[in-house]
Amino acid sequence: MQNFVLHNQTKIIFGADRLQEIGSEAKVLGARALLVYGRQSIRQNGILTAVTASLQSCSVAIIHHGGVQSNPLLSHVRQGIAKAKEEQVDMVIAVGGGSVIDSAKAIAAGALVDHDVWKFFNGKKSIKQCLPLACVLTLAAAGSEMNGGMVITHDDRKVKFGTGNRLLNPVVSILDPTLTYTVPPDYTAYGAADAIAHILEFYFTTADASTPVQDRFMEGLVINIMESCDKVLHDPCHYQGRADLMWCATLALNGWTAAGLGLVGFPMHMIEHTLSAHHDIAHGAGLSVVMPAWLAHQAERAPHKFAQFGRRVFQVEQKECRAAARAGIARLQEWLRGAGCPTSLAELGIAPETIPFLAEQSLPLAKLWRLKEYDQEKIETILRSCL
Amino acid sequence: MQNFVLHNQTKIIFGADRLQEIGSEAKVLGARALLVYGRQSIRQNGILTAVTASLQSCSVAIIHHGGVQSNPLLSHVRQGIAKAKEEQVDMVIAVGGGSVIDSAKAIAAGALVDHDVWKFFNGKKSIKQCLPLACVLTLAAAGSEMNGGMVITHDDRKVKFGTGNRLLNPVVSILDPTLTYTVPPDYTAYGAADAIAHILEFYFTTADASTPVQDRFMEGLVINIMESCDKVLHDPCHYQGRADLMWCATLALNGWTAAGLGLVGFPMHMIEHTLSAHHDIAHGAGLSVVMPAWLAHQAERAPHKFAQFGRRVFQVEQKECRAAARAGIARLQEWLRGAGCPTSLAELGIAPETIPFLAEQSLPLAKLWRLKEYDQEKIETILRSCL
Repeated sequence: MQNFVLHNQTKIIFGADRLQEIGSEAKVLGARALLVYGRQSIRQNGILTAVTASLQSCSVAIIHHGGVQSNPLLSHVRQGIAKAKEEQVDMVIAVGGGSVIDSAKAIAAGALVDHDVWKFFNGKKSIKQCLPLACVLTLAAAGSEMNGGMVITHDDRKVKFGTGNRLLNPVVSILDPTLTYTVPPDYTAYGAADAIAHILEFYFTTADASTPVQDRFMEGLVINIMESCDKVLHDPCHYQGRADLMWCATLALNGWTAAGLGLVGFPMHMIEHTLSAHHDIAHGAGLSVVMPAWLAHQAERAPHKFAQFGRRVFQVEQKECRAAARAGIARLQEWLRGAGCPTSLAELGIAPETIPFLAEQSLPLAKLWRLKEYDQEKIETILRSCL
Repeated sequence: MQNFVLHNQTKIIFGADRLQEIGSEAKVLGARALLVYGRQSIRQNGILTAVTASLQSCSVAIIHHGGVQSNPLLSHVRQGIAKAKEEQVDMVIAVGGGSVIDSAKAIAAGALVDHDVWKFFNGKKSIKQCLPLACVLTLAAAGSEMNGGMVITHDDRKVKFGTGNRLLNPVVSILDPTLTYTVPPDYTAYGAADAIAHILEFYFTTADASTPVQDRFMEGLVINIMESCDKVLHDPCHYQGRADLMWCATLALNGWTAAGLGLVGFPMHMIEHTLSAHHDIAHGAGLSVVMPAWLAHQAERAPHKFAQFGRRVFQVEQKECRAAARAGIARLQEWLRGAGCPTSLAELGIAPETIPFLAEQSLPLAKLWRLKEYDQEKIETILRSCL
């Protein structure tokens, strides 16, 4: 186990019918809120109405900033920062999934500085303070509701960069599984794929393999994500399934699994970010394509760890280590396919001839995230395995 | 999954050679600290010297309050409260295991009220504020370093009561596994038994059995506690083993496993508290005796859950549910015995004829903790199974 500091101060309010608590939670943070949300679904399913009613009943003034799209755009974040400054809000409230929460985080950090917010993403400035952030989660996927990470796409440069800071942790997040009943099957499955990818980035990229406590925690989460996703794909209003899936997705990236792993990387995310920066695809769908290919590539380096994964998560019975590793990856890919996730670039509409370009576009992020071993050739090799 | 609120703000600083950070962490909390610690070992192993040096280097004034004993006494807590008030300390610093940390918590709460601190334990008063608390952990066992619980023994009345409040969570806890290298084999194993008991209280007492995410997390912890304890009993300075055991013991009772379980109880602890209130035994040793008997008793009510435990934790192969349940409990008892823990009242020097008295003495705590089904007869039955 590596040394670590763990300090996650986000208050989680979890359960059915907790949505109406947003008003009283927000009131503690101030009197004026920038309310950040997405485009259509949030209006149609009544969640926005319920949130505004709760805030109004607690006398919290609302400045609206809807229209966040998936793979959220820097331009929209900049507009939010301008509003937050002009209206002198005390807090930011996000109602949505990872894209909305990440936009809200960028606004919360950008509202308190004079320079452009993108400087936080390209490493030219570091975050020193933020407006307090409250979240109402509507999608089990990104884990942003209980961590200090955020990912934003630069509209013009077509790069999707991420950064993190403990100050970005939401003060409070409301996780009401019933709010995800209306998430369609494809996005439910993409969310599960995203959460599994978060876990496996850590599980397989640790420098020190001696992390038995974290290993069993992560293996349990992967099993539970698959089981709960299967339940809700069969029955979208299965409360237990939606609750388990939501909580697992939060735990997949809230720092608990990573505590003690040492330096971890996000190579799958690095490659996927390029795909969704250049193509209009869901982040989880892109990860579902990259994941089996990256795993197969990585398995060559740590076959024992992969065999452990195959045996414990899928009960594969191959005695030979590399065979067990391959069998585990194959079973995961089968599960992704069965859940309706794409597992090839073709399914995403990405042509083979664009691979060199996509690999090249991934290099700046590889550099920024210090994934030193990922050069043009290696990324191309992995992408070719996604064909 | 049941609704829950999770808000654990304790900052964990984990790893080798982190002890010297206590000074800089304390400095943030104020200028004067009541330093609470135990009796002999803390002086012998150099930890106290290192802590005072770090505090002095950061200009934190120290008021000493050593002498905490295991099964810590109310009288000693009261003395600490008097010192804290007289010396107007800004914070309490605990250097030790659960007994020391629990004493420090009681002092931190008692120092800010005019009434007697015992009123927090008998339910007559509730905690509204506390002095900030910092901990340096020296024993993997109680989990008090990352939760808001505390247990104190009333000297005269011979009762050992516990209570909890989120305000009692330490602000910061330093978990340096190397500080446990000198813990002798018996106390190492008792600590492991204590941590396993914390997990199994929750695992087996949940009203709602549908907690697959928490189940797998807890099963993994039990396996890792046994594996890491075996390692350090063989090699006391095995860093990985000490680190895993320490982190597992913290996770066993920091609220993460309980999130979503609904109302949980502490029936094993209720019975054990009476044993160690009336006999000079280690808490973990008492739990090791009570645990198999209570599990066998409880298994009648939820054989499927016990069979799951046996199959997943010990790979028992019995197909029939009750047989698998029994086999799992037997394997756990074997492990406890193999680790050097007592598994009978005789080994604790407790005579069979005292059982009615001990059962009677357990009743006030059963009432206080709302363990309604535990009457004289039921507790006697369980204690007779410990013979």
